Amino acid sequence: MEFRVTFSGSRRAARTLWFLILMSLCLFITVCRASSPQEEEDSAMQNIVTEKRAEESHRQDSADLLIFILLLTLTILTIWLFKHRRFRFLHETGLAMIYGLIVGVILRYAVHVPRDVGTASMGCFVNISPATLLVNISGKFYEYTLKGEISANLVNDVQDNEMLRKVTFDPEVFFNILLPPIIFHAGYSLKRRHFFRNMGSILAYAFVGTVISCFVIGLLMYGCVMLMKQFSQLGGDFFFTDCLFYGAIVSATDPVTVLAIFHELQVDADMYALLFGESVLNDAVAVVLSSSIVAYQPQGDNSHTFEVMALLKSFGMFLGVFSGSFSLGVATGVVTALISFFTKLRDFQLLETALFFLMSWSTFLLAEACGFTGVVAVLFCGITQAHYTFNNLSPESQDRTKQLFELLNFLAENFIFSYMGLTLFTFQNHIFNPMFIVGAFLAVFVGRAANIYPLSFLLNLGRRYKIRSNFQHMMMFAGLRGAMTFALSIRDTATFARQMMFSTNLLVVFFTVWVCGGGTTQMLSCQRIRVGVDSDQDNSMGLADGSERRSTKQESAWLFRIWYNFDHNYLKPILTHSGPPLTTTLPPCCGPVARLLTSPQAIENECQLKDDDSDLILTDGDINLSYGDITVSTDAMGAHTNSGRSFSGTATSDDLDRELAYGDHELVMRGTRLVLPMDDSEPPFSDSIRNLRM
Amino acid sequence: MEFRVTFSGSRRAARTLWFLILMSLCLFITVCRASSPQEEEDSAMQNIVTEKRAEESHRQDSADLLIFILLLTLTILTIWLFKHRRFRFLHETGLAMIYGLIVGVILRYAVHVPRDVGTASMGCFVNISPATLLVNISGKFYEYTLKGEISANLVNDVQDNEMLRKVTFDPEVFFNILLPPIIFHAGYSLKRRHFFRNMGSILAYAFVGTVISCFVIGLLMYGCVMLMKQFSQLGGDFFFTDCLFYGAIVSATDPVTVLAIFHELQVDADMYALLFGESVLNDAVAVVLSSSIVAYQPQGDNSHTFEVMALLKSFGMFLGVFSGSFSLGVATGVVTALISFFTKLRDFQLLETALFFLMSWSTFLLAEACGFTGVVAVLFCGITQAHYTFNNLSPESQDRTKQLFELLNFLAENFIFSYMGLTLFTFQNHIFNPMFIVGAFLAVFVGRAANIYPLSFLLNLGRRYKIRSNFQHMMMFAGLRGAMTFALSIRDTATFARQMMFSTNLLVVFFTVWVCGGGTTQMLSCQRIRVGVDSDQDNSMGLADGSERRSTKQESAWLFRIWYNFDHNYLKPILTHSGPPLTTTLPPCCGPVARLLTSPQAIENECQLKDDDSDLILTDGDINLSYGDITVSTDAMGAHTNSGRSFSGTATSDDLDRELAYGDHELVMRGTRLVLPMDDSEPPFSDSIRNLRM
Repeated sequence: MEFRVTFSGSRRAARTLWFLILMSLCLFITVCRASSPQEEEDSAMQNIVTEKRAEESHRQDSADLLIFILLLTLTILTIWLFKHRRFRFLHETGLAMIYGLIVGVILRYAVHVPRDVGTASMGCFVNISPATLLVNISGKFYEYTLKGEISANLVNDVQDNEMLRKVTFDPEVFFNILLPPIIFHAGYSLKRRHFFRNMGSILAYAFVGTVISCFVIGLLMYGCVMLMKQFSQLGGDFFFTDCLFYGAIVSATDPVTVLAIFHELQVDADMYALLFGESVLNDAVAVVLSSSIVAYQPQGDNSHTFEVMALLKSFGMFLGVFSGSFSLGVATGVVTALISFFTKLRDFQLLETALFFLMSWSTFLLAEACGFTGVVAVLFCGITQAHYTFNNLSPESQDRTKQLFELLNFLAENFIFSYMGLTLFTFQNHIFNPMFIVGAFLAVFVGRAANIYPLSFLLNLGRRYKIRSNFQHMMMFAGLRGAMTFALSIRDTATFARQMMFSTNLLVVFFTVWVCGGGTTQMLSCQRIRVGVDSDQDNSMGLADGSERRSTKQESAWLFRIWYNFDHNYLKPILTHSGPPLTTTLPPCCGPVARLLTSPQAIENECQLKDDDSDLILTDGDINLSYGDITVSTDAMGAHTNSGRSFSGTATSDDLDRELAYGDHELVMRGTRLVLPMDDSEPPFSDSIRNLRM
Repeated sequence: MEFRVTFSGSRRAARTLWFLILMSLCLFITVCRASSPQEEEDSAMQNIVTEKRAEESHRQDSADLLIFILLLTLTILTIWLFKHRRFRFLHETGLAMIYGLIVGVILRYAVHVPRDVGTASMGCFVNISPATLLVNISGKFYEYTLKGEISANLVNDVQDNEMLRKVTFDPEVFFNILLPPIIFHAGYSLKRRHFFRNMGSILAYAFVGTVISCFVIGLLMYGCVMLMKQFSQLGGDFFFTDCLFYGAIVSATDPVTVLAIFHELQVDADMYALLFGESVLNDAVAVVLSSSIVAYQPQGDNSHTFEVMALLKSFGMFLGVFSGSFSLGVATGVVTALISFFTKLRDFQLLETALFFLMSWSTFLLAEACGFTGVVAVLFCGITQAHYTFNNLSPESQDRTKQLFELLNFLAENFIFSYMGLTLFTFQNHIFNPMFIVGAFLAVFVGRAANIYPLSFLLNLGRRYKIRSNFQHMMMFAGLRGAMTFALSIRDTATFARQMMFSTNLLVVFFTVWVCGGGTTQMLSCQRIRVGVDSDQDNSMGLADGSERRSTKQESAWLFRIWYNFDHNYLKPILTHSGPPLTTTLPPCCGPVARLLTSPQAIENECQLKDDDSDLILTDGDINLSYGDITVSTDAMGAHTNSGRSFSGTATSDDLDRELAYGDHELVMRGTRLVLPMDDSEPPFSDSIRNLRM
């Protein structure tokens, strides 16, 4: 009863607030747009004019940014309302786009700003465009920096639409500021257990699938463009490489919208892992693929013929950039793990969090500085951080880093999507070609189908537990396009072909996010995919019914068993506090090296366990004693238990299976010779440990 | 014994790591500086050249930023080492400056970059400098944006020192990106109890003191400049307004260094509050003061004569900008409080934190867009958020927001200080004038003395509990200059006078941070100021011995008693969930209004308390039952208790005193008619409540 009262009270209040903010936003836009240029310079002094203009420009920039902040605020409030009422047909990103659209319309049609006097046109007789220009204006030198090329027919527009161009961000902002936190967060929050169990399939979908999708879409679009030429519907050049490029950028699926709903509904964990893993890696592949296609530059006069050397060069570049970004990302992750391993930074959570943040950021910058792809590096850095560094962090820092990147991800994502909406109206060079758009939608659909169904068929030949057809349909349906496609499209809109791609991609994103994103819940129930599954409880259902979970190991093991053993026996002990001491895993001949590399803490743990095993063994009735030397550690803070776990001795295949199965529990086991029974039906300790911890 | 082993192990490892990173940083700088321009364009195509140059520039930017990130990483590791060994002679900011200096030296002297070909000089016959320049280069249009004016004698240097100028950030970055989180954090973490208790004195020091300091320094510097003119040591114009401007920017004291040490050593809370409050508000006053001085523009030909109208205009501007920024800051804080009050956003911590962050940021942007001072608005927004919004946040969001701004503050602060070190060598237009520097140090010293001692004397006339002489000496000593002085100095370095100010201020900051900051511990023990004081336990000591705490109320009450009552009875209930229901505080005639504005939760709380008081009263033996209807609430999360507190009924002066005294405890009291005994010796419940909560 009381809840009811509060609810309706807060409902009414929220609605009021909501409209109030919307109105104030509109008003604000109008006011700050209209008022700012009114301050005319009344003083003749040169300096004051310049100063005033700089101030004016700064105020204008602040106002522009403020529009976006208010947009985000509005989105947050509406999201809350939706969540509050469990309204799932429109995801927050879809909502952000709608608000963006509304503000775009207002900016475009409702606000008129007087012509800006601060733009001058001048001729110049140098033959390349310098990056920096020093202009001698009546005896004083001013420095100008190159902003970009403007196509000749738009020169007059430029001056008229100064205002619209002002709310248009530098496209590199998306790639260098907004995308990295999103991608890092995706890597950092990858559900490790299910990800590794389905690693083979995920890699197949991400690599082979994206390439298939890219070429299928590219070919279809080339056909479409040829057709358009026949009907003289094409207003400019559109080469085959452009088609392939389009195929690459539109093949990047977005992990955001569908997965948010999956997460909320607790959809089958394997389904979740397949889709999430695919769309995360997918992005990385698409980025590198598109830059390789751009790099395809045959020698000679006609730069759009086919040439084997150039193709090989592009392919080499793909491999080089991808592996380079991969190694850089992993390397920084490992360095961070080592730093947090060797220092006692965990006593100072602020320093620890700051270090973690800075190291992750530096991955991006390092990759960019080396000519690799920062976004890809950041993804693998995130995965490495989650796998190693996370175990060395103090519990507070684990929370802090998670929350920090969650927040950054949330803000960046909603910003991108609301900007997407805005840009539909404020972007100057839209080229909407109906034929191209229809072709693109068709191609995207066919490309996705050519990725999922044949690959699933092939994978099912190898998989013991098949990816069933309802899963395949769901994956087909869930191929939304989002932030990555947008960022890749807006990065370069100089030529006719790129402008048409950009406009078309905007529509593809809108459609998939609204229609496919909005229909996720329906599709899930229509395909009878189980929801409300506790991912810790469920281990094999959904892939094939009635099979025993243990055997899933076989399914994934061929791919990474060797890596897993190596990781567990050598990497984890070297990089984290959670592995078994190296002295027990390395062959005896490497004794001194092992002793050098093993952390005092690991040795200490082992000694402690040997000395007073009986003290540390949990003998609570709920826990089956045959589980052996399990110790639960509560650290200095008392409140938290570490989520890292360790087994000493050589990892057996049972360990592997079990670690994958229980990797997500908040439970530290610093045991030696962990002997687990062969019964795999239910994770046995999670509940009892929870009981213990109250 | 075990600790010893770990310690020395980690010590060795840390040392190794440390040098490794330092070396790699140097190497990295050299490599990425030297290698990047080597990639010469081998293709003649215009587009590729432009694209390559853009890419090159992007890579260079990434590398530059990476230098700073690595610098910060290095600083963090060293800070950890210092903290680990309890080494307090060098604060992290001092350390960041040292590393900045080292990198600056390397960049300046060890790295040589070939002349950049991308800069062209051209003449132009327009008579004002346009903000945007369209240049027609062999038929293509390129857009250039104005970066700034370059003095004529440096035009040739510009091209040579491209590299050094590249690591030089746009000065507005400090004001618009780095300073706001620092200032917001200061406001958000203001210790409310002691701040309010000493509000009169703090305001006096901050407003009157800063103005005194500004004018004393300005006059002394004017004398110094006159003297320099006599000895023909002055190489350019230096007007009286410049002197005053210098006085204003150098009067901003920095809350960072000394207070970090104070906090660590748990120095007397009143001392802490006085210094912290002063230096926080001080910054705001200095910003507005300096911009008012810049705005002093007498009409007529000679713009540096004295004119009453211009002075009044400046004074009006000071009042206008300050009060405008203040109201904006408070308004956004209140709006945030209202939003979090009326919505049930606390169920979704991510949304709540994001909203909090965005609203706080929008304060800054809004103030800037309106022509007020964003930094000042952000400060008051922070204080308001801490006072109202914080009470409406869920416990998780309280932690999250605190941690988020703590992190941002930490990063921004260390970035600024390491940049300060760097800029000593990389800044192009340093003018070090020995006479001016000596004069400035003297003036800063005298100005600080003229602020602290006379004001303390006057304040002591009014204060019942005197600010003793050792406190005065400590405040005198603790007047460090830091981030704000730097940001104000670097903002405009166009003229001779400004360049000399900037160079001198750098030295002032270095000196005060290293010498005064480093000597804080010595000074504290030399002045016999108590350390290791639990601020919750100690209430009046240090101001005057042997007095009873209760009476401190009288000392501060005259200033804000009315405000306090208003706040407690009306604002808190309207804006937060923690006040008494309005129905009890408003006069009966306002019944309907009160019922409308009172949150259901507050009414609910009250009903609950009336219905089943007995259930909620703590009857633990440790708590004196005469304390009445105290209820301890643990919320849904179980782990946390809210830090907001409430008393119902009209606030009495005892309430006031007590709220100030116990405001920091993690304890919720939603009681009615809280009757506390008159004994004020020790806060009685904090310990027992803690016992209760284990």
